[in-house]
Amino acid sequence: MKIRIYNARIITMAGGVDIIEGELHTDGDKISFAGSSSDAKKVCEGTIWDREIDACGNVIMPGFKDAHTHSAMTFLRSYADDLPLQEWLNNRVFPMEAKLTQDDVYWCSRLAIMEYLTSGITANFDMYMKNEANAKASVESGFRTVLCGSINDFGGTVKEIEDEYNRFNNYDKLLSYQLGFHAEYTTNRDILEEMAALAEKYKAPVYTHNSETKLEVEGCIERYGKTPTAFLDSIGMFNYGGGGFHCVYMTDEDLDICKSKKLWVVTNPASNVKLASGIAPIKKMLDMGIGLAIGTDGPASNNCLDMFREMFLTTALQKVSIPDASAVDANDVLHMATVGGALSMGLTDCDTIEAGKYADIIMIDLKQPNMQPLNNITKNIVYSGSKQNVKMTMVAGNILYEDGKFNIGAEPEEIYAKANESIERMKAE
Amino acid sequence: MKIRIYNARIITMAGGVDIIEGELHTDGDKISFAGSSSDAKKVCEGTIWDREIDACGNVIMPGFKDAHTHSAMTFLRSYADDLPLQEWLNNRVFPMEAKLTQDDVYWCSRLAIMEYLTSGITANFDMYMKNEANAKASVESGFRTVLCGSINDFGGTVKEIEDEYNRFNNYDKLLSYQLGFHAEYTTNRDILEEMAALAEKYKAPVYTHNSETKLEVEGCIERYGKTPTAFLDSIGMFNYGGGGFHCVYMTDEDLDICKSKKLWVVTNPASNVKLASGIAPIKKMLDMGIGLAIGTDGPASNNCLDMFREMFLTTALQKVSIPDASAVDANDVLHMATVGGALSMGLTDCDTIEAGKYADIIMIDLKQPNMQPLNNITKNIVYSGSKQNVKMTMVAGNILYEDGKFNIGAEPEEIYAKANESIERMKAE
Repeated sequence: MKIRIYNARIITMAGGVDIIEGELHTDGDKISFAGSSSDAKKVCEGTIWDREIDACGNVIMPGFKDAHTHSAMTFLRSYADDLPLQEWLNNRVFPMEAKLTQDDVYWCSRLAIMEYLTSGITANFDMYMKNEANAKASVESGFRTVLCGSINDFGGTVKEIEDEYNRFNNYDKLLSYQLGFHAEYTTNRDILEEMAALAEKYKAPVYTHNSETKLEVEGCIERYGKTPTAFLDSIGMFNYGGGGFHCVYMTDEDLDICKSKKLWVVTNPASNVKLASGIAPIKKMLDMGIGLAIGTDGPASNNCLDMFREMFLTTALQKVSIPDASAVDANDVLHMATVGGALSMGLTDCDTIEAGKYADIIMIDLKQPNMQPLNNITKNIVYSGSKQNVKMTMVAGNILYEDGKFNIGAEPEEIYAKANESIERMKAE
Repeated sequence: MKIRIYNARIITMAGGVDIIEGELHTDGDKISFAGSSSDAKKVCEGTIWDREIDACGNVIMPGFKDAHTHSAMTFLRSYADDLPLQEWLNNRVFPMEAKLTQDDVYWCSRLAIMEYLTSGITANFDMYMKNEANAKASVESGFRTVLCGSINDFGGTVKEIEDEYNRFNNYDKLLSYQLGFHAEYTTNRDILEEMAALAEKYKAPVYTHNSETKLEVEGCIERYGKTPTAFLDSIGMFNYGGGGFHCVYMTDEDLDICKSKKLWVVTNPASNVKLASGIAPIKKMLDMGIGLAIGTDGPASNNCLDMFREMFLTTALQKVSIPDASAVDANDVLHMATVGGALSMGLTDCDTIEAGKYADIIMIDLKQPNMQPLNNITKNIVYSGSKQNVKMTMVAGNILYEDGKFNIGAEPEEIYAKANESIERMKAE
């Protein structure tokens, strides 16, 4: 497909948040042009378009990247809200997860992908089990996923992680895979050392839940005399980079390690407040130049997969906790949610709007009351944007969501029915 | 108009969050029936409907009530984000507000009303200037507004407040008015004592910004040796009830006064975090049985008028700050956002879904990925709901917003254009 989008306000996110009034062209799965209307005229003279879209002055920007999530956990959305963390996890989440089938993961992941699209998210960094089903759900939806290894004491072997690494990095252009394990507190030292050796073998980055709760950090210090970040670094886990999800309780030494090892911090503010975990020191990290990305975490803890809520929280929680109303500029947050997210998961070809990059883009509807008047478009996307403003979501040149309608190779009603069947069966079992 | 809505999941909010599968009927501006399908059959045999709506299993519930806002401040949306509070207020907000005309307030209020409707808000408690324009904007939109007096040292006389009280309480069935002043720290003692006398004269409640910031409380203690709540109570301000907006910094004595004088606390969590003001002790207030409602505050500070964001924050900020993941049950939040909001502003006839109440109701679309599967509908509205789920907003029996289209007596494009003209003129002045 060759698509021409004109009358657009383009935020390329390639070095800042400047807005170009002009056009974006796609050729197959890539962006072939993005620039001013006059330049567009020169390059596309005589082109026969499959579709021409009048953006009517709306924003075209890179899709958001959900840099930490557990998609298939949609089945537990609102299944156990308002409970203390340990009761929620041990008595409600784990027993239900034990009943999950490949089929459940497939349909519940498809449900999550629908929601990502409604929130303008064009790729996710997905840590869950039964990755075969997860991969299938993404590719069949036309959605971009980076799978993340999730080995721990309760499931998986390092050999399986290696197999997944080789399999899913050669599976489909929409799919890739990064080495990962669930967390230090759920994974014994033998496995962790094997994972570090695997990272060495492939010269690959490694990702994990890191310092999400105070309890977790205290436990690690008790076990190893070090914080999770320091301990994992000491066994060579991060010699080729990687990142941590959550990173709420980080010492200055931890942050120095993040900085020197170029570790990405993926913040999950909605989950961290809803589960009473805490507020990550994002301003400090930003000031240090640590790479930052944003994730929704899974829908069991959040409960929604909405980058707008996460963006607001990423800055607002810093403002109130420091307290400083000027902390963490909204434009920095927009960078985290797009470019930062992409780079954190190893996606270097869909992070910005530039010719040659994948056409993973969204249209933000400015003709909604929450975006008017047009005082500061980029900051207002962060402070006032909502799913209601996502007019179109395109992944690899395909429009998967437009004006509330999905184009994902399955009917919404079927996906809803299957997800409901899954949870109802599990409740009855 | 007689409207029949069938195949609905009705959350009446009349004593709990139970869901009735059935029908809702309107007759003019009122609800004539809400109950089970079998009961509906008995009451409506032979009725000729102006419209019959298949809710397709979606939720019908009372509209949200935005219990503290400054609607016309839409003109400053994203005009000055990421600034320290005093710089924002003194250098950016006040100079622009000085340039406002009645016409500006009219169009900018209309813009806000559009946004309320997209968020399922059916009434607002609006404290701003130039109330003539504000009243006109509401009534012409078909929207319900309770105006709140906003006298302070920089504008207004108590005589004018009394005139407004009498005028706007006899203006239109959609409009009412409550006595109010801006805040203790902006209003001298003479005016405050006159306001207390006015409250006595009309045996009326009084509303004000209260203890929003630490600085404000410290200033009051310096001036009067008492917190704002205690000082205002000591001069008889709250002898007939009323309420406080924000109420972030409240002593135990303040909360006792709220309890004994039946003062409503209207929390504004998004504004309080974005402006780094703090987190109100909502759990404590809830445990004490203090009446609670939720407001968005104005769009200059928020930046959006979105009850879903406020509901999530109302509970999530308690969870993280206590910390206790079980603090402030989502169903209590749903009550604050509907019934609490209505009662806080003196609306006793549109708070719940019951025959005889005004038909101020909304339809929540459950056929969206963020609402699936259906594990716990009411809690999930609080934790995962978004403007995208507002399928219909009805005020006094009139559908003002449905499937993204407005029916408010003016075209969206005209309202956007006028709001942009206002701010552009003011920037140029």
